[in-house]
Amino acid sequence: MSSSTRTETDSFGPIDVPADAYWGAQTERSIGNFPFGPRERMPAEIVHALGFIKQAAARVNARIGGLDPQLAEAIQQAAAEVARGDLDGQFPLVIWQTGSGTQSNMNANEVIAGRANEILTGKRGGKEPVHPNDHVNKGQSSNDSFPTAMHIAAGRAVHQRLIPALKMMHARLSDQANKWDSIVKIGRTHLQDATPLTLGQEFSGYAAQVEDCVARVEAALPRVMRLAQGGTAVGTGLNAPKGFAGEFAAEVSRLTQLPFTSAPNKFAELAAHDTLVELSGVLNVVAVALSKIANDIRLLGSGPRCGLGELKLPENEPGSSIMPGKVNPTQAEMLTMVAAQVMGNHVAVTVGGLQGHMELNVFKPLIGANVVRSINLLATGMESFTERMLDGTEPDQERISELMNRSLMLVTALAPEIGYDNAATIAKHAHKTGKTLKEAGLELGLVDEATFDRVVKPETMLGR
Amino acid sequence: MSSSTRTETDSFGPIDVPADAYWGAQTERSIGNFPFGPRERMPAEIVHALGFIKQAAARVNARIGGLDPQLAEAIQQAAAEVARGDLDGQFPLVIWQTGSGTQSNMNANEVIAGRANEILTGKRGGKEPVHPNDHVNKGQSSNDSFPTAMHIAAGRAVHQRLIPALKMMHARLSDQANKWDSIVKIGRTHLQDATPLTLGQEFSGYAAQVEDCVARVEAALPRVMRLAQGGTAVGTGLNAPKGFAGEFAAEVSRLTQLPFTSAPNKFAELAAHDTLVELSGVLNVVAVALSKIANDIRLLGSGPRCGLGELKLPENEPGSSIMPGKVNPTQAEMLTMVAAQVMGNHVAVTVGGLQGHMELNVFKPLIGANVVRSINLLATGMESFTERMLDGTEPDQERISELMNRSLMLVTALAPEIGYDNAATIAKHAHKTGKTLKEAGLELGLVDEATFDRVVKPETMLGR
Amino acid sequence: MSSSTRTETDSFGPIDVPADAYWGAQTERSIGNFPFGPRERMPAEIVHALGFIKQAAARVNARIGGLDPQLAEAIQQAAAEVARGDLDGQFPLVIWQTGSGTQSNMNANEVIAGRANEILTGKRGGKEPVHPNDHVNKGQSSNDSFPTAMHIAAGRAVHQRLIPALKMMHARLSDQANKWDSIVKIGRTHLQDATPLTLGQEFSGYAAQVEDCVARVEAALPRVMRLAQGGTAVGTGLNAPKGFAGEFAAEVSRLTQLPFTSAPNKFAELAAHDTLVELSGVLNVVAVALSKIANDIRLLGSGPRCGLGELKLPENEPGSSIMPGKVNPTQAEMLTMVAAQVMGNHVAVTVGGLQGHMELNVFKPLIGANVVRSINLLATGMESFTERMLDGTEPDQERISELMNRSLMLVTALAPEIGYDNAATIAKHAHKTGKTLKEAGLELGLVDEATFDRVVKPETMLGR
Amino acid sequence: MSSSTRTETDSFGPIDVPADAYWGAQTERSIGNFPFGPRERMPAEIVHALGFIKQAAARVNARIGGLDPQLAEAIQQAAAEVARGDLDGQFPLVIWQTGSGTQSNMNANEVIAGRANEILTGKRGGKEPVHPNDHVNKGQSSNDSFPTAMHIAAGRAVHQRLIPALKMMHARLSDQANKWDSIVKIGRTHLQDATPLTLGQEFSGYAAQVEDCVARVEAALPRVMRLAQGGTAVGTGLNAPKGFAGEFAAEVSRLTQLPFTSAPNKFAELAAHDTLVELSGVLNVVAVALSKIANDIRLLGSGPRCGLGELKLPENEPGSSIMPGKVNPTQAEMLTMVAAQVMGNHVAVTVGGLQGHMELNVFKPLIGANVVRSINLLATGMESFTERMLDGTEPDQERISELMNRSLMLVTALAPEIGYDNAATIAKHAHKTGKTLKEAGLELGLVDEATFDRVVKPETMLGR
Repeated sequence: MSSSTRTETDSFGPIDVPADAYWGAQTERSIGNFPFGPRERMPAEIVHALGFIKQAAARVNARIGGLDPQLAEAIQQAAAEVARGDLDGQFPLVIWQTGSGTQSNMNANEVIAGRANEILTGKRGGKEPVHPNDHVNKGQSSNDSFPTAMHIAAGRAVHQRLIPALKMMHARLSDQANKWDSIVKIGRTHLQDATPLTLGQEFSGYAAQVEDCVARVEAALPRVMRLAQGGTAVGTGLNAPKGFAGEFAAEVSRLTQLPFTSAPNKFAELAAHDTLVELSGVLNVVAVALSKIANDIRLLGSGPRCGLGELKLPENEPGSSIMPGKVNPTQAEMLTMVAAQVMGNHVAVTVGGLQGHMELNVFKPLIGANVVRSINLLATGMESFTERMLDGTEPDQERISELMNRSLMLVTALAPEIGYDNAATIAKHAHKTGKTLKEAGLELGLVDEATFDRVVKPETMLGR
Repeated sequence: MSSSTRTETDSFGPIDVPADAYWGAQTERSIGNFPFGPRERMPAEIVHALGFIKQAAARVNARIGGLDPQLAEAIQQAAAEVARGDLDGQFPLVIWQTGSGTQSNMNANEVIAGRANEILTGKRGGKEPVHPNDHVNKGQSSNDSFPTAMHIAAGRAVHQRLIPALKMMHARLSDQANKWDSIVKIGRTHLQDATPLTLGQEFSGYAAQVEDCVARVEAALPRVMRLAQGGTAVGTGLNAPKGFAGEFAAEVSRLTQLPFTSAPNKFAELAAHDTLVELSGVLNVVAVALSKIANDIRLLGSGPRCGLGELKLPENEPGSSIMPGKVNPTQAEMLTMVAAQVMGNHVAVTVGGLQGHMELNVFKPLIGANVVRSINLLATGMESFTERMLDGTEPDQERISELMNRSLMLVTALAPEIGYDNAATIAKHAHKTGKTLKEAGLELGLVDEATFDRVVKPETMLGR
Repeated sequence: MSSSTRTETDSFGPIDVPADAYWGAQTERSIGNFPFGPRERMPAEIVHALGFIKQAAARVNARIGGLDPQLAEAIQQAAAEVARGDLDGQFPLVIWQTGSGTQSNMNANEVIAGRANEILTGKRGGKEPVHPNDHVNKGQSSNDSFPTAMHIAAGRAVHQRLIPALKMMHARLSDQANKWDSIVKIGRTHLQDATPLTLGQEFSGYAAQVEDCVARVEAALPRVMRLAQGGTAVGTGLNAPKGFAGEFAAEVSRLTQLPFTSAPNKFAELAAHDTLVELSGVLNVVAVALSKIANDIRLLGSGPRCGLGELKLPENEPGSSIMPGKVNPTQAEMLTMVAAQVMGNHVAVTVGGLQGHMELNVFKPLIGANVVRSINLLATGMESFTERMLDGTEPDQERISELMNRSLMLVTALAPEIGYDNAATIAKHAHKTGKTLKEAGLELGLVDEATFDRVVKPETMLGR
Repeated sequence: MSSSTRTETDSFGPIDVPADAYWGAQTERSIGNFPFGPRERMPAEIVHALGFIKQAAARVNARIGGLDPQLAEAIQQAAAEVARGDLDGQFPLVIWQTGSGTQSNMNANEVIAGRANEILTGKRGGKEPVHPNDHVNKGQSSNDSFPTAMHIAAGRAVHQRLIPALKMMHARLSDQANKWDSIVKIGRTHLQDATPLTLGQEFSGYAAQVEDCVARVEAALPRVMRLAQGGTAVGTGLNAPKGFAGEFAAEVSRLTQLPFTSAPNKFAELAAHDTLVELSGVLNVVAVALSKIANDIRLLGSGPRCGLGELKLPENEPGSSIMPGKVNPTQAEMLTMVAAQVMGNHVAVTVGGLQGHMELNVFKPLIGANVVRSINLLATGMESFTERMLDGTEPDQERISELMNRSLMLVTALAPEIGYDNAATIAKHAHKTGKTLKEAGLELGLVDEATFDRVVKPETMLGR
């Protein structure tokens, strides 16, 4: 921003703002009142959502709210610039502000008024002819606009980033489940050797986990896609024209091409954010599922010579600043770290969600910012993990066979033939003496060779 | 338990058990290996679910698994006793055991075998003619039985306790929303005076929150009602007869009268517990919603003389051991404490859920016990809060009117008439001078009396 | 309890209580008002602490509070029975009650009065000659007594259970660090092969973690040992005699033989529970440290034939109901589950701690119960893990050597001689061709044999 | 960065980097491998700590590690620029990378080498004469450097930001406790009217909470100030010269003017981050304490006409985009949101801390970034709250008196005179009839006027 200034005013009086800023007095005041610095800025996704809101509101206000069509047109045009991200630099405010997001809503109102005034008069900023409150915010309150922005931002991020990333990862895991369906390997339960399965079956479990996550996200969507707009200050809709809420939701759906609806009870939408706590809970499940998958893959890829070594992981970068030649499962580390952050964010959202008071929950920016961040982290994390880890992972078939044939747990196949207790005796004897199962069974006289050979075949132990 | 003993054996050798116990060697060993005491016992709900499992499995095994019909009948009968809770005293094991729940599964196998043997031979315990592993556990593994028990326990608790309690509370809140729909009161945002709404509108928000919680629980049910049984040790179904999984789920549905299904991918069901993390996330939302409602009600009922005092709360017990005559919102305190526990349990479930390894998550008892406890806490909490708090709560209409008429925020109705900035000036002037809005507005010349009287009417500010 | 009853009264009127109960009206009322059942009872440790409080208070009241010495003597005697646990059955109330713990405080007052009256008159219960409020609760309020009970219970549990268990586990790990100090093994970072260390060094890390945990617990103790008693209803000490707080703390110290002190600011002690949130945070660190140790040991003990297999874990019970002969790291599973619960409890405590209002935090029973449970879980968990896991764990020296000699990361020793880039080239070449490091280095001409043999010796790579 | 490039190489081969970047191949590779964008960058505090590390290491290496003094001098100079923040733009890497922070360590090595080479040769970048690994990273590994950076960053932030902010807030609260010590007001427990205290006493509780937080932070410092450096790859210190660890810690202490020490057990410091989990737990307590204080102040300041109204809060900005003249407790909202984030971050740190494997915890960047962020959020939050909320808060003495004189809980003073049950009867009678306590007491004949007047005086109920 330039060092020259102009004067703007609000109900607190005049204040200087940078001459090239579109914003006005309230934004400037907030910069001074909440000195957290650029790292803590309100996420761009929420800013863009405010753009959509102001654009939709201007259209509806022109139609049914008595807003001058010329002003409405200029507001719309300016708001569309905000929605597109063209004016991101005009949103300097941080997450840690008023708990209703009032200042970010006013930041949007001011920037859009300031830009609309420029369009109409050539002069940037100010309140004439377009006033931030009376025109841009017409029929709205921060108390309904900001939660609407939270839901639009979350709804868009879910549709555009989270679900595609889940589906991309699911597709890859499903491919691998199919491709590796005939590779028989040792199963492990309690991290101890167990009965065999195929590598494809193992990956089918991962694929199923991710597929279920898509279903979980979709199950929450009916509530996520609801908008609070139209409730104004406390949920009653005071000062909004009749029919505003429904028209507005339809307009936002047109603008975003996503099926947003008007929330059936506006009081609940302003006063609580149960739905974003719910969505955050779903993100928490996604994080848990990804942790399991990434952990397994790094365990199966552990080695190269002193680990399990069943998978060969791709090498993306040098692994160690001191151990030459080391290659590490860095994408798995990234993904499990991201997952831990999402679990933490979920607690922040929960703590914010539980503390609403009467007509307004005042942890809105916290909740909105964490949900958006969690979605972005998970989506980028999954995309990167799929491309840079899954795509390059290959089974080490030799190692897989070697381990499977060594296992004692093939004895399980004998239990229906000779009873659980006898089978256990054979396995323990083999373990203590270092013998094979067959040797141990014959030596103890608990099974004959023909039975053993007929029954103990890994490829018949796969439940098919 | 009596002090006389009998000897039972397992693959580790002989061990003494109390003579009147139905259980056998493995249960006894677990008592010694995990000395946490009776307070930490496995929840009865999971024990009962194991009863249903063994009963259903015996039926299916008799049909398609080659189990001797006479043994099957005795097993069934004994298992039904477990499912009904008749043998709860025979389940001494604690939550903190093997992470697969193996010992609780064996506890069920042993008790049912021990009881079936008693039915068949008159002699309690032992492995003849009914063997805990070979017959009661036939076609099963702890690795699929225990997660099945977790889902049956959770599914039953959701249907029998959680949803009815939510609906009961919702009905009461809806009634109050209707009953109090014409009581106009001050709204509060940021805990500061805001524009008016009715007490009924306020309660309609609470009702909507609880109604949405029912929808959230139901959205998770398709996955909760899936059973892992049939996966046996690692998900392949080794040692289970063909068709076992489907038949089993149908049998459990018949026994419980609830729509359980067989999980489409057994590998995922054993190796991860994403669905119970999901359900726990929904319980977390319920806890958040209840916290909001209970907090509001205690705030609105604060007083009797130095608080908000809009609601008169029922007196259930003396409130203070030192301050005579004090009455406290104890049901709200109970409910918000319960909610905090559920939020904590959710993190425990999340931490347990994220740490599965390969074919088995070994935090099963932790996860199962926390989900069941959370459901019970919420259900009892809601029932009690509804009966002992909501039912006895009454508006203090005099106080409500007094506060509303005192408020400055009725000025909001003027904004569309005289502009936001002028309206703000009036409110601030009234606040500083202690005058009414009307006095301030007329004094400043910013509004005329006719306009004021026409516009500033709380009953027209309700968005109707 | 018997089915015959007697009538007791409180300020709400008469109510029937079981004839053989020592408790009175308020306890009976609470049983009805909070129907959570026996599983959710207030922990015995808090009940015992209330016994110590009433005993100490009676002594101080006799000395400086004008309490009739004969009544004081009977109160003392009855309170000592409560403190010793002799009357645990007389405390039926649950955690989920008034958030100040008022009803449990009254339960103690009533039981002690009821028992003291029996001592003095032969008649159980009632308020004559000893009155629950006027005599047993003299100079006290629930608001200071219950937090005092929380701190006494926590302080005793820390001294008697947590610290001894930590020290026991530390001693064992230190022994193993010493005993295994010459067993050179492969290090693993990122779960990938790294430079060597000794098994003793690895265990010295675990020992250091546990030792630090003792220091952390001790660092919190100065605040944990502070008692709120003397603050009465709101922290001012109204109705307590001058000097009560100090005398009381000294008396409790004598009775418990632990260095309790009187809290310097009583307002903070009633209104917030930051110190128990702090202690819970320390328990959270203990849980984190134990998770790391238990996870490592189960990984190192994975196998028997298809895992890392460096440690041989003790066999405590049969491992699988379907896989005969399987032995699982059940103590590690127990300990990591316990740790997850403690992490969850910590969030519950945090959520309870953050919600105090003005002069009183009303999440006291939640906070107290979770802290006590977490301590008990950790202490029993550590004792059991030490005895049943650590004590029986042995290195598999053959396997350890085999793995170490196979590793490529010994190449790190070459880096200071031939440069990082050359060393990396050798490691990668060996990995790709399956050759030894030496073969690869010589083949590439990047190192000569003499240098290699001089430098690449695991036993010189231990930083000694 | 410019669009022209130069070529850099690592063990993976050549790669183009921007011509004006100081960084090299590994940094460039990481930008491509972890595409999270600028919002997720590694915190500057950790980058600066890496600068201190490399500067200290160069000095020690020149003294005892055989590093060419001329190279050492150039490294030192470049590293000092990093430590001062002059080269922040050269650190584009994100938090979500290798879990050991290897790439950020290499980013530092490369930038410092690139800058040192520029100093020595005029040519930016490259590995000649200063090599990122062989010289800048000499005697170090990412595995010890990055945790050292985490502790330096945390230790500096605690000393420079957290403790000063706590002390600033404590000083202000103490001042207010003193200043308002004679303003008698109604106490509130359970949000219900209780016995009186002074506003100063109430604030003394807040001051005590903050003072205890300073003590808690200081109690953790002995462990926070320990540095892992010298452990190199797995804790053994392989490739570091003898004495490196101790000399290094002394050098860092000189550079930072803070008492850093060398950690007694390096294995534990690399493999686990218990100490940062501990510190995060302390930050969690701070967050809990701040939530309580900020919540109380907004409750006490609720109004202006329909709330408690005991405090007049400062007006920092317009409060509502729809309700003119509204002023909100925005600093309290900011502070409680910040606190919720810190609680969430604490869970992220806990989840990261519990998942270390063998010789290395690979959640380092997650843990470091969250601890640093939490400290910054709390410090800025407290500073802002102190300046913009506490400083401008004033008691509304008229309102305080009005409420106190209305209260029924002054009856508590009568209990020692006329017994608890009689006092309760008076209070209830007054409540039901709307009478004053005195009227009710006299009417019921339970107290005489002289006694009442002598005993029921708020100013004598303050425990002094």
